[in-house]
Amino acid sequence: MADKKMWGGRFSKGTAASMEAFSESVSFDRLLYAEDIRGSQAHARMLAKQGFLTEDEGRTLCEGLDRVKAEIESGEFVWKAAMEDVHMNVESRLTELIGPLGGKLHTARSRNDQVALDFRLHVAARLAGWQEKLAALITVYVDRAEEHKDTMLPGCTHFQPAQPVTLGHHLLAYCQMFKRDHERVADALKRVRVMPLGAAALAGTTHPVNPALVAEDLGLTETFANSMDAVSDRDFVVEAVFAGSLIMAHLSRMCEELIIWANPNFGYVKLPDQYSTGSSIMPQKKNPDACEIMRGKTGRVVGSLMGLLVLIKGLPMTYNRDMQEDKEPFFDADRTVSASLGIMADMLRLMEFVPEKMAQTVRRGFLNATELADYLAAKGVPFREAHHITGAAVAYAEGKGVGLEDLDLAELKRFSGEIGEDVYAVLDYHAAIERRITPGGTGPASVAAQIGALRAWLGSL
Amino acid sequence: MADKKMWGGRFSKGTAASMEAFSESVSFDRLLYAEDIRGSQAHARMLAKQGFLTEDEGRTLCEGLDRVKAEIESGEFVWKAAMEDVHMNVESRLTELIGPLGGKLHTARSRNDQVALDFRLHVAARLAGWQEKLAALITVYVDRAEEHKDTMLPGCTHFQPAQPVTLGHHLLAYCQMFKRDHERVADALKRVRVMPLGAAALAGTTHPVNPALVAEDLGLTETFANSMDAVSDRDFVVEAVFAGSLIMAHLSRMCEELIIWANPNFGYVKLPDQYSTGSSIMPQKKNPDACEIMRGKTGRVVGSLMGLLVLIKGLPMTYNRDMQEDKEPFFDADRTVSASLGIMADMLRLMEFVPEKMAQTVRRGFLNATELADYLAAKGVPFREAHHITGAAVAYAEGKGVGLEDLDLAELKRFSGEIGEDVYAVLDYHAAIERRITPGGTGPASVAAQIGALRAWLGSL
Amino acid sequence: MADKKMWGGRFSKGTAASMEAFSESVSFDRLLYAEDIRGSQAHARMLAKQGFLTEDEGRTLCEGLDRVKAEIESGEFVWKAAMEDVHMNVESRLTELIGPLGGKLHTARSRNDQVALDFRLHVAARLAGWQEKLAALITVYVDRAEEHKDTMLPGCTHFQPAQPVTLGHHLLAYCQMFKRDHERVADALKRVRVMPLGAAALAGTTHPVNPALVAEDLGLTETFANSMDAVSDRDFVVEAVFAGSLIMAHLSRMCEELIIWANPNFGYVKLPDQYSTGSSIMPQKKNPDACEIMRGKTGRVVGSLMGLLVLIKGLPMTYNRDMQEDKEPFFDADRTVSASLGIMADMLRLMEFVPEKMAQTVRRGFLNATELADYLAAKGVPFREAHHITGAAVAYAEGKGVGLEDLDLAELKRFSGEIGEDVYAVLDYHAAIERRITPGGTGPASVAAQIGALRAWLGSL
Amino acid sequence: MADKKMWGGRFSKGTAASMEAFSESVSFDRLLYAEDIRGSQAHARMLAKQGFLTEDEGRTLCEGLDRVKAEIESGEFVWKAAMEDVHMNVESRLTELIGPLGGKLHTARSRNDQVALDFRLHVAARLAGWQEKLAALITVYVDRAEEHKDTMLPGCTHFQPAQPVTLGHHLLAYCQMFKRDHERVADALKRVRVMPLGAAALAGTTHPVNPALVAEDLGLTETFANSMDAVSDRDFVVEAVFAGSLIMAHLSRMCEELIIWANPNFGYVKLPDQYSTGSSIMPQKKNPDACEIMRGKTGRVVGSLMGLLVLIKGLPMTYNRDMQEDKEPFFDADRTVSASLGIMADMLRLMEFVPEKMAQTVRRGFLNATELADYLAAKGVPFREAHHITGAAVAYAEGKGVGLEDLDLAELKRFSGEIGEDVYAVLDYHAAIERRITPGGTGPASVAAQIGALRAWLGSL
Repeated sequence: MADKKMWGGRFSKGTAASMEAFSESVSFDRLLYAEDIRGSQAHARMLAKQGFLTEDEGRTLCEGLDRVKAEIESGEFVWKAAMEDVHMNVESRLTELIGPLGGKLHTARSRNDQVALDFRLHVAARLAGWQEKLAALITVYVDRAEEHKDTMLPGCTHFQPAQPVTLGHHLLAYCQMFKRDHERVADALKRVRVMPLGAAALAGTTHPVNPALVAEDLGLTETFANSMDAVSDRDFVVEAVFAGSLIMAHLSRMCEELIIWANPNFGYVKLPDQYSTGSSIMPQKKNPDACEIMRGKTGRVVGSLMGLLVLIKGLPMTYNRDMQEDKEPFFDADRTVSASLGIMADMLRLMEFVPEKMAQTVRRGFLNATELADYLAAKGVPFREAHHITGAAVAYAEGKGVGLEDLDLAELKRFSGEIGEDVYAVLDYHAAIERRITPGGTGPASVAAQIGALRAWLGSL
Repeated sequence: MADKKMWGGRFSKGTAASMEAFSESVSFDRLLYAEDIRGSQAHARMLAKQGFLTEDEGRTLCEGLDRVKAEIESGEFVWKAAMEDVHMNVESRLTELIGPLGGKLHTARSRNDQVALDFRLHVAARLAGWQEKLAALITVYVDRAEEHKDTMLPGCTHFQPAQPVTLGHHLLAYCQMFKRDHERVADALKRVRVMPLGAAALAGTTHPVNPALVAEDLGLTETFANSMDAVSDRDFVVEAVFAGSLIMAHLSRMCEELIIWANPNFGYVKLPDQYSTGSSIMPQKKNPDACEIMRGKTGRVVGSLMGLLVLIKGLPMTYNRDMQEDKEPFFDADRTVSASLGIMADMLRLMEFVPEKMAQTVRRGFLNATELADYLAAKGVPFREAHHITGAAVAYAEGKGVGLEDLDLAELKRFSGEIGEDVYAVLDYHAAIERRITPGGTGPASVAAQIGALRAWLGSL
Repeated sequence: MADKKMWGGRFSKGTAASMEAFSESVSFDRLLYAEDIRGSQAHARMLAKQGFLTEDEGRTLCEGLDRVKAEIESGEFVWKAAMEDVHMNVESRLTELIGPLGGKLHTARSRNDQVALDFRLHVAARLAGWQEKLAALITVYVDRAEEHKDTMLPGCTHFQPAQPVTLGHHLLAYCQMFKRDHERVADALKRVRVMPLGAAALAGTTHPVNPALVAEDLGLTETFANSMDAVSDRDFVVEAVFAGSLIMAHLSRMCEELIIWANPNFGYVKLPDQYSTGSSIMPQKKNPDACEIMRGKTGRVVGSLMGLLVLIKGLPMTYNRDMQEDKEPFFDADRTVSASLGIMADMLRLMEFVPEKMAQTVRRGFLNATELADYLAAKGVPFREAHHITGAAVAYAEGKGVGLEDLDLAELKRFSGEIGEDVYAVLDYHAAIERRITPGGTGPASVAAQIGALRAWLGSL
Repeated sequence: MADKKMWGGRFSKGTAASMEAFSESVSFDRLLYAEDIRGSQAHARMLAKQGFLTEDEGRTLCEGLDRVKAEIESGEFVWKAAMEDVHMNVESRLTELIGPLGGKLHTARSRNDQVALDFRLHVAARLAGWQEKLAALITVYVDRAEEHKDTMLPGCTHFQPAQPVTLGHHLLAYCQMFKRDHERVADALKRVRVMPLGAAALAGTTHPVNPALVAEDLGLTETFANSMDAVSDRDFVVEAVFAGSLIMAHLSRMCEELIIWANPNFGYVKLPDQYSTGSSIMPQKKNPDACEIMRGKTGRVVGSLMGLLVLIKGLPMTYNRDMQEDKEPFFDADRTVSASLGIMADMLRLMEFVPEKMAQTVRRGFLNATELADYLAAKGVPFREAHHITGAAVAYAEGKGVGLEDLDLAELKRFSGEIGEDVYAVLDYHAAIERRITPGGTGPASVAAQIGALRAWLGSL
């Protein structure tokens, strides 16, 4: 069996079956077939331009690769684990189809730089997909925010109602998170879109190849600067999975809020039937499954990041086979991130917010207490004293089971002589929101400006 | 579509296709089919004994489940993603085969406690498998250690040659690691083998079931103490994956050593052809792929552990759908740990150690320097001075390109008048090993005792 | 400067200042002073018994070490970074106090086995402390559970109210988690309490020492089996921090619930003033800071675990200086776990539950829907149909804004003719709890049994 | 005690001592004092410009803050744990110094936006420091690479010698890693340098402040877009620690190589005395401690990253006290990254490479085997056959204990008639390096170009 392998010459024993299973990658790296073929075609065109192949040979190789691709996409291609990886599977079929010319693809190329190129192309394509999904999700957020720009919501700190905000403002906070994610992915892409072909096994090649030509053909923005780094750099995938981890962290925050908001004690949101489940034994239930699964999957992506960081720790130069373990964590993270972004967008589009429930909490929560304190301070009461006065008024109203705004002037005056009729305008919750005039605050002008800026940004992509 | 689901009653819209894909688990939890069926059969027998079913009904259920199992194992079973998980797939087929009686399996059981049971049975079976593989690996280590109980090796600290040890002693160090792993798995198993059935959805059931009976039937050692904990506890799988992480950490240490030892500058080991690869362009190479992949896969298991710890952080009581994400990390960790243990055992059995190369390093590395210092100390030279004298002698011998033992007495005496003819016995490397008489040290008696103790322990399993 | 160091002989340049700062450990390992001294005293006694020292010498050493300890504890001891670590600081002061005899402590001991011993003694002591704190916390849980054994609470799955349980039963679920933690720590301790002294640098010593004697003196249950493993094993600390990670995960679940329960929309709990903060600008607020910080600190302990797993990955035999990085993660985890367990116990003891709020949710949440479905099933209605009927009744009652139990018989009969007057007994929430008769279920007998079993277990510790 | 706190009004019990210790942050966040004061001064200037303060008041505040700063830096400042954090400590001292005017700093500011600002300023300053240290390290790499641009080294894949490269080329591979780190830090800085002041507690303020003015004053490039995001965003610190994790991963690779290269079996490098230690009992040893500790500390930074990702998972809007746990992981990561970068630069500057040892391995390792295969292929031998021929020749030479270049022509011709006298030029190792002409390859032109490009880049910073 030993001599079946390309490198079998000096080996007297064949690979153990358990080793074949342990080391094969074709069961997962076949996902890279399109990039493998695209990369090989660009390489063939370069070889032809540089005179390593005739034009005819170059064309035959590219057409043969197109045929392999068609076979794979039609399902007739037979994947062979014995061929170890996607590259050998494709090449071996190519050679069956077009003969020994297939072998010329090896010119000035090694599996080390080939695998790096394929994976970079794949990661680049998927990250571009994340960007699209992020933009689509932000679009839904902006739409819903606009719809709810006047919907009053108890803004929380420490998960305690603090000050009234608008639901629109709250939703726009998530837009900032996902916009940062979009930018982070863009930054990562600069380091993904680097052409490693020409690094060969590790030292570069003896052939006058033209890496810049291949890079241009493939739409990559840079070519490698150092061949040893080119075959052993996996930073780009670690950085991609890190960007995915933060995306999931942001989604997990939204999921957490939705799960709590869907609990009947809150009742702020009715999740869409399409993304919920019921219970086979408890007919009253509607479960926020999509949010729960998504929150749970956050760990999955963070786990992949951790795995990759363990993987690269302490690896000496250059390529080490450990690096084969870089693919599955990314594939899994990509599936998770892509699906999660899509589902959150759909779910957000369909969910029904319940403004009355939100307003109820605002009223029951003394969310105008800060306003009263500010009002007193503006009248010259030292802030610390204003704070104490307000605390006492809150305690009194709480005891009566009413809001501050329900107390009559005589009652309020008992706490401070400074309080006058104008206090009621201040205690109005909507007024409290409208007074928040800082750029970026919850006031209507800021919300409108945020929406405008986000729409402009989305339009510019 | 909505009403297809058991719980569809109050839902006006069916589940979105993206949600079906996001939330289905049958693509991976079908792995649990055998445990699902075994658990259901035990449940059916208990229901019959407690009088919820007639004996005939119980028997029919068990036989029906056997038929489902046979269908699955023969490959004729049709798995349906729309049925979401393994449990619904099995139950639905059962009902097709034996009619509405199939539904009676639901008595006093919910999917929450059923899934907990199935997974516990599965984890328990796999951990028992790890224990067997650990024992088999330790056996190989002990055999190779015995074979090399007199093979001299430079023992390192800080990866610098320090004192001579035997290769046997070095290999036995790994036995201690894997023995601890075996015990750690045993400890974890105590917390895995707990019967959750009867917890129902979360609160227990209104039916006088007998959990102890089911536990006994399934060979589980305990039954759950609290129903809310029973359906939401996932500690057992986190602990299992932690045990797996340490196993992989130990394997990664061995892999690291083998990779370095296989480098021609060391040359201490020739790895078996069956677990190595060559290079398609560099004919002189023999690559330690199995070791590299295994070292790389360490990150994978640690990543799964991390994912699980993120998953359970901050989850309120009781079952949350996030917990569905507990299975794939374990399945993946199990595949990795099981394969790695098996391959290391095979590889270790087949590898060829190269004692001459090890001995060379011992001789070139002044590994008898400590002996000289001890010798001087024994003659009454203060240890600090003895250390300085030895350092000077080492520098001198290094300059001449020889070992301490190659210096003649006159030369040695120049460093200290205390040195006499008896020093050569002390400078003998084998003697240095033999003088290490502490229990657990590298001396022959200790190595023999270690081997004996390990064989006795292996025999007792 | 070079020759200041014990090993400076062959070095022509002294240690760089940046390196001193980078490599010193005395700033944190001084925490080990008591164990260092205790270990040295046991070693001295053994040396005397084995005849390496006279009885007088042994006594002088032990007394000298007592004086060093007294100096440290009184604050007069001067720690010196140049002495690198706790061991050198202690030893150097000892020698100042009692003269060159201090150096004899080195007999048959190296810093490698000494540091392993000190750290094992420390971890063992701290883990025993965790066990005490876990038991104390469980005691508070049991007390509060007993107090609330009849307090009705909406039991949740998917964070949606599912079935009524008692608050007592809910609290007892946490007892099971912390009891498992207690057992896990006990299991870890078996692998911590192993005596490494006598392993010397890595190979054992040439002196006929008696490790078993030292182990007994120090209350350790085992002595090392292999000297190379003894100086390089750090599993015990990784396992300890893992046990701590699960403790924190359990605490984080409780914290999450308390934070939500303290939100006014729930209002299930009033957190003690002593563990809450207010807001300097929002007088109505009471923030659950202790719970938030504790939930946040979960990441800290998990991070330490991950750091340790990265640390040991791929380390060749035996001791490597990387291992110095094992201490701070444990010290930090210990501080976090110990403080958190104590604070949760105090907080739980002081917090005020609000049963009316819990009961309100139960009533508004149709938590008797399962009971109605079960009732219909018991009357012979197929369960699927019973589930549909109940769903319709729930929808109807929801529309009227009342509970199922508020519908009159005529209204109920419209959904199924099988419904009779006896349904009202079934719809009673307390009855639903009492009917949960499974061992481990939420019924009163089970709760009482759980309390009894836990008290017995606590008593047996 | 309760009323000591600003918010104590409605609280009847004071904070527990254990809670004070658990929740205080001044023991670590005092590190932020300079940024706290700088931020407050900018805020005061803005308040004055906007008319909230007179010019005099503004000036008095700024001068008062300068006095506080001077006190802190001279060591006379008394930090009080009861004041909880750095902000309260500074403010309270300011008020002692300048009277009630100090309280006016509160205008339009909350602790939530203040803490965000301080931390952002700190992280920004530290990341800029990382960039400087990265540039300094790259400079040393480039210098040493230039010095060793002709030094031959066995380039490895799978840690097996593969093809000869130059040590210069090898060192330049690390420059690419650290250059990417530099760029990654620059990208992170865009998201760090965002001004959060004006977000107040969460909703913005009612005062017409001018955040852009403060941003400009502080050299920040952006102001916050959404107040809720502004107070709860911690992405910037997670991203910073991620960038640090990759820096450490790269350093760990270099450390691993140095540790192995310093082992006598390699002997490629003599580490500087200043960053090594000896052994107190083994006089021949020189331990690569700095490299080991640095490799070990990689786990520490990765652990901090993991801790932060656990921290933010599932946190609802907006500020939660959990977030206080964001600082120590960054402080610790910063200390580790900064020290490690500095030490690696110093160590690299001082270490002595041993070219003869590297050359020896090249010669003994058949690193010209690829050349022979290429030579045959160029003569028209199919590559697969060329590979087999070369393998056989290698085996033959190995058997004789010589290199391929040592075989005479007759011997070589036995393997293939195509081999002629010109083969010896091809088998020359230096020629093999010089033939690697790809841009980015190991050939001299490429190495010179890499050095030029890096020097230009360094010059442009």
